[in-house]
Amino acid sequence: MGTMLAVVKALPGPGAKISTVETPAIGPADVLIKVIATSICGTDLHIYNWDAWAQSQIRTPLVFGHEFHGEVVEVGREVATLHPGDRVSVESHVPCGRCHQCTHGMMHICDELKIIGVHRAGCFAQYVAVPALCAWKVSPGMPPEVASLMEPMGNSVHVVSEAQVSGKTVAVFGCGPAGLFATGCARAKGAAALYAVDINRHRLELAKAMGADEVINGADPDLIGRLVKLSGGYGVDVALEMSGSQKAIVNALRSLKKGGTFVAFGIPSRPIELDLANDVILNGRRMLGVVGRRMFEDWVEMQRLLDGGKLDPRPIITHRFKLAEFEQAIATIRQDGVKCGKVVLFP
Amino acid sequence: MGTMLAVVKALPGPGAKISTVETPAIGPADVLIKVIATSICGTDLHIYNWDAWAQSQIRTPLVFGHEFHGEVVEVGREVATLHPGDRVSVESHVPCGRCHQCTHGMMHICDELKIIGVHRAGCFAQYVAVPALCAWKVSPGMPPEVASLMEPMGNSVHVVSEAQVSGKTVAVFGCGPAGLFATGCARAKGAAALYAVDINRHRLELAKAMGADEVINGADPDLIGRLVKLSGGYGVDVALEMSGSQKAIVNALRSLKKGGTFVAFGIPSRPIELDLANDVILNGRRMLGVVGRRMFEDWVEMQRLLDGGKLDPRPIITHRFKLAEFEQAIATIRQDGVKCGKVVLFP
Amino acid sequence: MGTMLAVVKALPGPGAKISTVETPAIGPADVLIKVIATSICGTDLHIYNWDAWAQSQIRTPLVFGHEFHGEVVEVGREVATLHPGDRVSVESHVPCGRCHQCTHGMMHICDELKIIGVHRAGCFAQYVAVPALCAWKVSPGMPPEVASLMEPMGNSVHVVSEAQVSGKTVAVFGCGPAGLFATGCARAKGAAALYAVDINRHRLELAKAMGADEVINGADPDLIGRLVKLSGGYGVDVALEMSGSQKAIVNALRSLKKGGTFVAFGIPSRPIELDLANDVILNGRRMLGVVGRRMFEDWVEMQRLLDGGKLDPRPIITHRFKLAEFEQAIATIRQDGVKCGKVVLFP
Amino acid sequence: MGTMLAVVKALPGPGAKISTVETPAIGPADVLIKVIATSICGTDLHIYNWDAWAQSQIRTPLVFGHEFHGEVVEVGREVATLHPGDRVSVESHVPCGRCHQCTHGMMHICDELKIIGVHRAGCFAQYVAVPALCAWKVSPGMPPEVASLMEPMGNSVHVVSEAQVSGKTVAVFGCGPAGLFATGCARAKGAAALYAVDINRHRLELAKAMGADEVINGADPDLIGRLVKLSGGYGVDVALEMSGSQKAIVNALRSLKKGGTFVAFGIPSRPIELDLANDVILNGRRMLGVVGRRMFEDWVEMQRLLDGGKLDPRPIITHRFKLAEFEQAIATIRQDGVKCGKVVLFP
Repeated sequence: MGTMLAVVKALPGPGAKISTVETPAIGPADVLIKVIATSICGTDLHIYNWDAWAQSQIRTPLVFGHEFHGEVVEVGREVATLHPGDRVSVESHVPCGRCHQCTHGMMHICDELKIIGVHRAGCFAQYVAVPALCAWKVSPGMPPEVASLMEPMGNSVHVVSEAQVSGKTVAVFGCGPAGLFATGCARAKGAAALYAVDINRHRLELAKAMGADEVINGADPDLIGRLVKLSGGYGVDVALEMSGSQKAIVNALRSLKKGGTFVAFGIPSRPIELDLANDVILNGRRMLGVVGRRMFEDWVEMQRLLDGGKLDPRPIITHRFKLAEFEQAIATIRQDGVKCGKVVLFP
Repeated sequence: MGTMLAVVKALPGPGAKISTVETPAIGPADVLIKVIATSICGTDLHIYNWDAWAQSQIRTPLVFGHEFHGEVVEVGREVATLHPGDRVSVESHVPCGRCHQCTHGMMHICDELKIIGVHRAGCFAQYVAVPALCAWKVSPGMPPEVASLMEPMGNSVHVVSEAQVSGKTVAVFGCGPAGLFATGCARAKGAAALYAVDINRHRLELAKAMGADEVINGADPDLIGRLVKLSGGYGVDVALEMSGSQKAIVNALRSLKKGGTFVAFGIPSRPIELDLANDVILNGRRMLGVVGRRMFEDWVEMQRLLDGGKLDPRPIITHRFKLAEFEQAIATIRQDGVKCGKVVLFP
Repeated sequence: MGTMLAVVKALPGPGAKISTVETPAIGPADVLIKVIATSICGTDLHIYNWDAWAQSQIRTPLVFGHEFHGEVVEVGREVATLHPGDRVSVESHVPCGRCHQCTHGMMHICDELKIIGVHRAGCFAQYVAVPALCAWKVSPGMPPEVASLMEPMGNSVHVVSEAQVSGKTVAVFGCGPAGLFATGCARAKGAAALYAVDINRHRLELAKAMGADEVINGADPDLIGRLVKLSGGYGVDVALEMSGSQKAIVNALRSLKKGGTFVAFGIPSRPIELDLANDVILNGRRMLGVVGRRMFEDWVEMQRLLDGGKLDPRPIITHRFKLAEFEQAIATIRQDGVKCGKVVLFP
Repeated sequence: MGTMLAVVKALPGPGAKISTVETPAIGPADVLIKVIATSICGTDLHIYNWDAWAQSQIRTPLVFGHEFHGEVVEVGREVATLHPGDRVSVESHVPCGRCHQCTHGMMHICDELKIIGVHRAGCFAQYVAVPALCAWKVSPGMPPEVASLMEPMGNSVHVVSEAQVSGKTVAVFGCGPAGLFATGCARAKGAAALYAVDINRHRLELAKAMGADEVINGADPDLIGRLVKLSGGYGVDVALEMSGSQKAIVNALRSLKKGGTFVAFGIPSRPIELDLANDVILNGRRMLGVVGRRMFEDWVEMQRLLDGGKLDPRPIITHRFKLAEFEQAIATIRQDGVKCGKVVLFP
């Protein structure tokens, strides 16, 4: 099939390498996609850094990367729904299609989930092969860099949909990319008042740009008091926890009204301590764990919100590089004190 | 207690009369409100015109009117939650507080509902007495004419909440005041795409001003085809029927996707003909009847949406009169070819 | 492949014929099933009688029938989930897998739905070929005649699930097989009080056997009054309309409490007249159209309820015949004054 | 007003004392109730034992007790809904009626909640005064000891309603009275399969009597494996955590399927450690905190389930005493190795 440029985790250990590798072959139910734009996720940093999680999940050599937009250039013989020339964004979670969840409209929590760029070859490359099922045809004229963000943004559409923010007061804890997308989605999906919390001033500026009515420094000792006051004296209706920090989790729960809804999306790196009695039970609160994107309810909704201009993630894109500048892109993300949202790469 | 100016339906028959009547006395659980602004509802026209419905409901003499904003000037001895000087808007539906619905968080469909300005003295007057339970304290600084519209706008908040429009494609059928409020609410509560339908060009202009993405003439022979096309080829997710017209009801159902939601708010004047098999059952659709405002979920949400500027009904207010100019106000509403949304009166 | 016995609609016009036809061939995603038990649906009578609906849908020659249980005897080359020897019941609705509904967990209202025994060869035969997707593996030891009823019973599981009957007062209108299954499902799924309505005394006896707390003759002039009284004075929480009769539809709506839920499943043969204002809107009621079975939520739930003995449809099976006695089975169903629930055929 | 017998916490410190105290006087919105039967709650043991919680909440002297049935003997002048002779059970949570939750159909999580027998005089006495709002008129002919259990049983109705058990597989963790009531309610409200877990063999016997399909010893090292197997291989749909134990909380979460629902009711005595990443987020699970009884949705539903015989708590009542034998009742509850469910006292 020829060769292509790709970012490869060649051996166990930190770092990655720009290499020439074989262009992937496709199976009967797959499509081959020419990558047009790809963005970098926190997960990619874990793989680059080779932390404990990466060591447990990754088998080298692996082309990684899982957020991208591209053009279909070849389709497998069983594929009826896509054609060469179609522009797509891709669901990175490959479901088995057979388990209990897959047959219950819950493919996003499939028992046998495989992730592109983690368990199979990813998109930091010129070409990538994916199951046709996972390729989402984007609306005509969509900017490639926006289309490359649909995978991570879809998580936030999912978070915001579960939270039912329409007409509600909403606080977003953590304004990394996931929190910024959630801020934009909550704005688009009808939050009545939207407060964003982070300890990084650059990120709070981005949250403002994404539609937060108020931004609050997470280190403010009166954080909870301020949120309670802003929301009319009884706490916010909804807290979206996008950071995974123990402190943010507790603050988010305590900023909620009685009967309020907490959505857990940020992944804590270790078990948390939780005052289940007071922070949950006795206040009649609910905690909803959210992972992935519902296939394809969240994609349909996201496409619509983007098409009508209700959701526009472009303020979050702060840096653009060529794929070959991958190391420079990683260095930018790791640098302190830089206003860094999403970084998009162009092969 | 002294006397006051009021619009009175003095005797059975068409018309109304500006009279001097006794200022109402209050009971132990009531408050007396000095009316600052009051708006005219379609129901008031039924009473003025003395149609069959009015004849069945109204006992003369009656001060009518039920949409208003005012200042509390006196409180009954059992009233702990309100004080003279408080600015309020008023829930016109007075629930019994004891029936099955009232004890189930559904006071808006109380078995013994009494309506201000229909079953008891209303607000087309300088003063009106209402149960303290029904007085909603508005946010400081709210424009009186906006506050006078909370009662009818609350219906539309209710309609839009039941319909769950967040992230959905939504068509509004009928752009009289109820439909215009619904358009604004659906915009504020996160509709992804919003289409308004009416046969009156002035009303469609107002719908645009309230946030419709597209407006369509209801007489368009390809109305359903256009809505299906606009919504991606499978029909809209949600149709809000605000007109009560047989034709609009059928069009609204047929513009829905399979599995879509139809909310019925407009009151047909006679039984309708419905193809229940094809328009509902075989397409797995749902029809939700909505009446009144949930007390006080819809008020809380409406106040928030207004406070944050997400909802602004002012484009709908097309005319303002003094209360003493009531006949002129009625004539304006009845006149053909005039761009007429809501008419507000100032005592 | 050889030949088999089948019930065939050979030519347009009333009747059917027992013939020897070719055993069906299977495609790569299909399975071939040896039919063990099959039951007769109202739809089969429409086909037999050759009414207007049948004339519009059926192309002869056609083996009809769509409710059945059997054993997998051959699988297509792409089929990984089933094996010869597996015992299955079959979802008769074949979804396309590609449309908006199919990609939204709503395959049961697929845009391109094909029905076994209507649009493709059915199960009144010794063998039938179906897509593997539609074959539901039943629990070991399930009685064949019960397994043959899962298709029609699944409709009622769907109806009852949409209606949310748990802890509620429920009235079932129409005690043909669909209403009898719904009665059993509502009992199993936790209705607090369950009332069945029909004009046929035999059917009311079967409703009792399926778990109705009270049965009421639909011709009772005080039907609504009785239901309101039985349900504590304010009407039932939920009405399940399983008959399609104009009169039953109106009675069902009027027996509901304010805010109650009406589920429409019975298909009226012509448009209905509906007092939308009073029977729906002003009482804040909802009407939910239900068709088909959710794939496979309703199957999972039904299997569980059957396995644990919470649901047992056997009282509904009143007659058993050999497949070759098809004409006699039809005659039994058409005979007046007979206690007839479901008729099961054994090839 | 005369005097009466009562169980009094006279002074800070362990124990209680049977005393003669003044019969309570009623306010204008109260009713005076002659106690017919009263049952003992875990909370009463905390008060008796004078633990840290009790020390923080109770001001002596206090008549305690909050679960009871009785007859109205006097009504305040504003009370229109109750009359002497009415038989009632009583909601122990007295809401303020004015806060955000109270005006949102969520009185059970009122900001100013006062609890009978904790913050005001309770029911271990011959008479008790309560707000008329809190008195629930029971169905005629209800056995007094059953009516005395409606308060604690209502918690479990609430738990089971939030969990949406109809047609689902359900595991109950902890078979003290709350778990036993939940078992009975889950059975009545349509659980498809119901598993009860406890380490006490007597309690598991009671769980069987209340309708558990299977009971499992909580110390079984393969507890999770057994629950997963019983529920078809993917875990239970719903886990009801009624014990408050750290170990049970973790087991309950891990016995859930992906996407399953955990209801937290049992109050842990200290913060818990929670693997939020794996046990909640990455499996898309939800944790719902439940407290109190929804007023009066849960009462209505409970009354219906009791009236129709779908729910019968009598197996849980293991001991009966006279009120004067209070010390003996307490001793029975505290005794190890006794089959003890609920203890009912008769004044």
